[in-house]
Amino acid sequence: MKEPNKRKIINDPVFGFINIPNNFLYDIIQHPYFQRLSRIKQLGLSSFVYPGAQHTRLQHSLGAMHLMSEAIAQLRLEGHEISLEESEAVQACMLLHDIGHGPFSHTLEHSLVSGVNHEEISLWMMQKINREIDGKLDMALQIFTNNYPRKFLHQLVSSQLDMDRLDYLSRDSFYSGVSEGIIGAARIIKMLNIHNDQLVVEAKGIYSIEKFLVARRLMYWQVYLHKTSVAAEKMLMNILRRAKELAGRNVDLFASPALHYFLYNEVSKKHFTDSEVALRHFAMLDDSDVICAIKVWSEHSDIVLSFLCKSFIDRRLFKVETGTKPVADERREVLLRQYMTHFNVSAEDATYFMGEEIVSTDTYSPKDDNINILYKDGTVKDIADASDMLNISVLTKKVEKFYYCYLKL
Amino acid sequence: MKEPNKRKIINDPVFGFINIPNNFLYDIIQHPYFQRLSRIKQLGLSSFVYPGAQHTRLQHSLGAMHLMSEAIAQLRLEGHEISLEESEAVQACMLLHDIGHGPFSHTLEHSLVSGVNHEEISLWMMQKINREIDGKLDMALQIFTNNYPRKFLHQLVSSQLDMDRLDYLSRDSFYSGVSEGIIGAARIIKMLNIHNDQLVVEAKGIYSIEKFLVARRLMYWQVYLHKTSVAAEKMLMNILRRAKELAGRNVDLFASPALHYFLYNEVSKKHFTDSEVALRHFAMLDDSDVICAIKVWSEHSDIVLSFLCKSFIDRRLFKVETGTKPVADERREVLLRQYMTHFNVSAEDATYFMGEEIVSTDTYSPKDDNINILYKDGTVKDIADASDMLNISVLTKKVEKFYYCYLKL
Amino acid sequence: MKEPNKRKIINDPVFGFINIPNNFLYDIIQHPYFQRLSRIKQLGLSSFVYPGAQHTRLQHSLGAMHLMSEAIAQLRLEGHEISLEESEAVQACMLLHDIGHGPFSHTLEHSLVSGVNHEEISLWMMQKINREIDGKLDMALQIFTNNYPRKFLHQLVSSQLDMDRLDYLSRDSFYSGVSEGIIGAARIIKMLNIHNDQLVVEAKGIYSIEKFLVARRLMYWQVYLHKTSVAAEKMLMNILRRAKELAGRNVDLFASPALHYFLYNEVSKKHFTDSEVALRHFAMLDDSDVICAIKVWSEHSDIVLSFLCKSFIDRRLFKVETGTKPVADERREVLLRQYMTHFNVSAEDATYFMGEEIVSTDTYSPKDDNINILYKDGTVKDIADASDMLNISVLTKKVEKFYYCYLKL
Amino acid sequence: MKEPNKRKIINDPVFGFINIPNNFLYDIIQHPYFQRLSRIKQLGLSSFVYPGAQHTRLQHSLGAMHLMSEAIAQLRLEGHEISLEESEAVQACMLLHDIGHGPFSHTLEHSLVSGVNHEEISLWMMQKINREIDGKLDMALQIFTNNYPRKFLHQLVSSQLDMDRLDYLSRDSFYSGVSEGIIGAARIIKMLNIHNDQLVVEAKGIYSIEKFLVARRLMYWQVYLHKTSVAAEKMLMNILRRAKELAGRNVDLFASPALHYFLYNEVSKKHFTDSEVALRHFAMLDDSDVICAIKVWSEHSDIVLSFLCKSFIDRRLFKVETGTKPVADERREVLLRQYMTHFNVSAEDATYFMGEEIVSTDTYSPKDDNINILYKDGTVKDIADASDMLNISVLTKKVEKFYYCYLKL
Repeated sequence: MKEPNKRKIINDPVFGFINIPNNFLYDIIQHPYFQRLSRIKQLGLSSFVYPGAQHTRLQHSLGAMHLMSEAIAQLRLEGHEISLEESEAVQACMLLHDIGHGPFSHTLEHSLVSGVNHEEISLWMMQKINREIDGKLDMALQIFTNNYPRKFLHQLVSSQLDMDRLDYLSRDSFYSGVSEGIIGAARIIKMLNIHNDQLVVEAKGIYSIEKFLVARRLMYWQVYLHKTSVAAEKMLMNILRRAKELAGRNVDLFASPALHYFLYNEVSKKHFTDSEVALRHFAMLDDSDVICAIKVWSEHSDIVLSFLCKSFIDRRLFKVETGTKPVADERREVLLRQYMTHFNVSAEDATYFMGEEIVSTDTYSPKDDNINILYKDGTVKDIADASDMLNISVLTKKVEKFYYCYLKL
Repeated sequence: MKEPNKRKIINDPVFGFINIPNNFLYDIIQHPYFQRLSRIKQLGLSSFVYPGAQHTRLQHSLGAMHLMSEAIAQLRLEGHEISLEESEAVQACMLLHDIGHGPFSHTLEHSLVSGVNHEEISLWMMQKINREIDGKLDMALQIFTNNYPRKFLHQLVSSQLDMDRLDYLSRDSFYSGVSEGIIGAARIIKMLNIHNDQLVVEAKGIYSIEKFLVARRLMYWQVYLHKTSVAAEKMLMNILRRAKELAGRNVDLFASPALHYFLYNEVSKKHFTDSEVALRHFAMLDDSDVICAIKVWSEHSDIVLSFLCKSFIDRRLFKVETGTKPVADERREVLLRQYMTHFNVSAEDATYFMGEEIVSTDTYSPKDDNINILYKDGTVKDIADASDMLNISVLTKKVEKFYYCYLKL
Repeated sequence: MKEPNKRKIINDPVFGFINIPNNFLYDIIQHPYFQRLSRIKQLGLSSFVYPGAQHTRLQHSLGAMHLMSEAIAQLRLEGHEISLEESEAVQACMLLHDIGHGPFSHTLEHSLVSGVNHEEISLWMMQKINREIDGKLDMALQIFTNNYPRKFLHQLVSSQLDMDRLDYLSRDSFYSGVSEGIIGAARIIKMLNIHNDQLVVEAKGIYSIEKFLVARRLMYWQVYLHKTSVAAEKMLMNILRRAKELAGRNVDLFASPALHYFLYNEVSKKHFTDSEVALRHFAMLDDSDVICAIKVWSEHSDIVLSFLCKSFIDRRLFKVETGTKPVADERREVLLRQYMTHFNVSAEDATYFMGEEIVSTDTYSPKDDNINILYKDGTVKDIADASDMLNISVLTKKVEKFYYCYLKL
Repeated sequence: MKEPNKRKIINDPVFGFINIPNNFLYDIIQHPYFQRLSRIKQLGLSSFVYPGAQHTRLQHSLGAMHLMSEAIAQLRLEGHEISLEESEAVQACMLLHDIGHGPFSHTLEHSLVSGVNHEEISLWMMQKINREIDGKLDMALQIFTNNYPRKFLHQLVSSQLDMDRLDYLSRDSFYSGVSEGIIGAARIIKMLNIHNDQLVVEAKGIYSIEKFLVARRLMYWQVYLHKTSVAAEKMLMNILRRAKELAGRNVDLFASPALHYFLYNEVSKKHFTDSEVALRHFAMLDDSDVICAIKVWSEHSDIVLSFLCKSFIDRRLFKVETGTKPVADERREVLLRQYMTHFNVSAEDATYFMGEEIVSTDTYSPKDDNINILYKDGTVKDIADASDMLNISVLTKKVEKFYYCYLKL
């Protein structure tokens, strides 16, 4: 019996319509691992600053798949042969590239799990789905891990000009309302080409690439590293650290079974690789476990935990100061003493009411992979050399800022 | 000491920037009741159909406040005096008009609480905030309950052309990606005027009003009453009914304290009016309590509950058939017998795998309040008379559809 | 020698990018007849009311071609075979469907030429191009004149839901800034299908079609028949009638040779069909001939001509009154006498300072062709029957308005 | 008698609605000089490349006035007192800042008039209007010429971050469809402040300013200096030079009286200052005079003129090569000889079939005025120092390109 065609059209505020062209991709979208992404916000705590930024990792993954289909169409127009199987494989990569993200991903990685990052979990999840569907993801996995012979396919999936970035910059700026972050994704894709199995951008696209890099930088400072978001993250990290500490002391904490598992165990890489338990619990975690627990903890008897949770829930966030060097020890001491007195807690407990973070960003990093510009005469140049504006010294300069977050009594 | 000015600008993808003009409105926004709205999605389960529809009730309330400030500015330009206090009061109304919504509001009202609707809860919450801020909401409450002498102010807050509708139609169409639902909110507001203390629209705005009514109708059938959304709601309703039934039998269910309260008690209006316990618990409920519980219940020993929850979480929703009359008894019987066999459950338990809903909508209902058109000669006509296209018989015709939802084995 | 591929991408503010897929279509675009459309504004005098409405007939034709390519892609996705030749032919039709428009087309047709309409001229021009390119437009001409066996192709080109309308409603609302006129062109195209060689819309698209019809109606009254535009058109018509009258009396008038030809000859259909002179002159006419002449005429010794021209150029337009019946004879008389005194002119000359127009529109006219809705069970219904809102009596009601334009002294 | 209020709302595709707040500004808009701008395209010949770029100088002037009203409102919100008279004066400046532009302005300045630029003509026209309205433009003229004591007002009108640039970058990118040129005009305006009578941008706006400068640069290379536009300009310049040469030899040329005046006289600054004749003729010139004449000249007996005109009208433009140094003399010679043979013309006449242009742009020029960044501690820095990305060496680097345009036989 012929399987019914599951071709679907999904409405997307950013790109209009997204086609799901066939059953293979449709079935990935229907997988519980993928549906979980609908319960994880792409920008985590940014909605404290930008209330519109509610979009999910599921939307981003669909959008990246959509841009991939446009990129493939463009490269075919340029005369490059890309097989149907390759095309489906890179689209599957985009659907699955973020599958291993947990709720409030970066915060979680620094508190609940140790020594495991979301890239590894993504790979494990992809491998697990692959086993379930009899190896249909083999080529996608090869491309994802850069073991497929045609290198430009991996570059479309993961490089400084991949479909991941093109979607998230477009989508994050759209939803946050920071319209200056909008990049010309459509125009950049129209400029893509392949040269010696490398993804390149045609020379007339230089200005669009410059704009893309500047927009990316703007999004970093204006959205991703917005000081209020960092304050919220720092607060959430302290909450989870405190909860974990209490759990370590066998204090009773409300938690869903999945969250409970990560609170009451020291989960490391070994837990994921030795059995399926860790991954199974991880696959049940989403934003709701964390938010729901924090609300309940806001009435916990531990004053540190409950105070932080209540403040977090009611959006009374840490104050933040930014600077070019770490906060002075004296200032930290003064505040800690205030907290000790005010909450009647130990010096160690008082540290939960503050946090520090060094944030840094380089706009473009030519070490690993490059954005290559193709000229009409066939020569290829790195964008850092091709652009007379964005010269290499500027582009690769790492900018570092110190964020000091603390409770203002 | 002079209180610092808390004037703020909020980025909004729909309207660009939203100004919070003063401390009075800022303090309402900072209230925990209001912040709770950031954890409740405006369109509840519609994101199963439109993945972009992730916007929250907080955003909608801010947007409605913004449109209100534009409307006030417009009416002042037309020469009507509106005091600063009145202006702040109607803006406060818009911030607070939905404050009493629970998570997945309509579903919840039909399962967890009985005989209490969100409008009543909104009023109780407004009154509670008013007590906390020494009666500063007195005028807002008068306007909200239509006890303020100047009636047009209430109409701006609640009527067939209120700022609530203008915002939610704009916002819901924007986020769902159903761009045909976009209305000309800015143009409609530019056409507003007051005539004999009634909100009216100037005659040249007739076509914009027609368009607004048609867009509203389109949004009803295409989004609010989309059959897949209705299926998801029906499923959620059955889940909550089942959970409540199990709770009634003292079966143990994972739940946050707030959700626990509504599951294990028969909460009625009396509970809200006699003490603060019900309202306090209600104010702690949001989407995360429900989603988090359903995930845990998906592994519950009760097969009815766990099957529904697992299906819901993984987006395997009920099938839906729509028609002009209820489903035939025989068809229902056949399915019920299938479920009884398949799940080895009683006839009564089998009913949880299906649901029926009569949905109906009239585009415009001239009974209660009207959309009035003001002509240059000073005469006023109901839009149903003024429009040669949308004549009264068409506009007021109630369209009814029967949705039959069921598990496809 | 292989001809170089002229594949081009054109930036379009409305649709993003427009592809010109091959040399055949590219060569049509490069034809002088087509390039002439870049010098004729799509909305003629509407820019007196909507200063943004500056877009040209060339842009509209490119846009309609673009939508046609999307419609063809959609119908192929639905499984209908459409040959490359057919696809190119319908796209050529869209490029050429308006090729015979003159500057300020409707005005011109009522003053400079008599008994010839732009549809006829379009056909003559298409035939002439066809002769130049050795019959490559044969199929396009068959489709255009509805002599091609597959009728749905003609419907895509010319019917109540053709690509012409989809483009001009989208484009005119975009450029005028009347955003309520925006229709969901992309969504409507996604709903297109073919049934028994008829273009149909799938049932779930009903609301989009309702919205399309209402938006069209709104655009009629708000833009195309805006009273200030009508006043400007009436003024221009009187200017050209006066110029023609003076030319008939051999009064000397500044004019480009092309305009001169139409002023100093009584050009009728016969002139076009008997020789190439009329068509050759027509092909040289565009907005600039008319505007440039009117500026010069504003200093002509004929007071009627110069007064009208100076007023027109400086945007001091006729006043307009609209009503449901013609203006009363007495009122007209009073004004005429005023003009006779004021300008010291004859009764006949005084009539140039006023104008009357009966404008009418029916939103949907099911006489000629229908918008057909296809249900899942294979039945087909006219939209006027399928929509419970837009019932036939409303849709087909012809609305008539009387515009009375006059100089206010 | 009280003058009727002429408050008007104008639809604008870029900013939604533009308010004309009072009679003073309304009367300027109604002035024939201002209305002339509705017949001059903002981007001149760019529509050969970007067919959507049809917007007029009138729209740009209205848009700049609109942004000015927003900027004034913002500065008042920041606590700066700006009188109603000052506010009207700067808005009048924006309406009038481009009033002296002729059709295809830059081309014309290099061919028809000598030693007179549009800035001077703007001033003369403003002074003439000022005389007509009894000095009501006195303050506007003071601000325009930077003779008003409060210097920030002039900076709003003319500086590297003036309302002129904010509008034209927004508008030109919108209409050309080059969406990467979109700047966050609204956000930049929200960041404006005044410090020591200097316009400054608050520090958190740095990224928006970086983005603005990069977008500006992108628009230069992608739109304003697009090689096809430059080719068209070069062609137009040669056409006008040839026409002027023929006129100098008393050859008869079709032309409107206004164009005739500039063709058959050597008009210099003296002509404008000594009598009103030159200005009166200039005020009658717009795009239509030039386009209409070129069409007629395409059949002129002078082969150089007619060939260039016919090519221009049919969009068969010069080929362009760009490089970092001028074209080699030998190459130029070879081509000239080809033209001499092909057209049977003299060496001098052959030069009309080619053209050269050195185009250059510096993104930001800190010599004259600066974009100043205001920090919270009250310090002010030039953006070139404040931005760690756009350092001064990069920003001020002048990029030069050589364009060589020639007829390809």
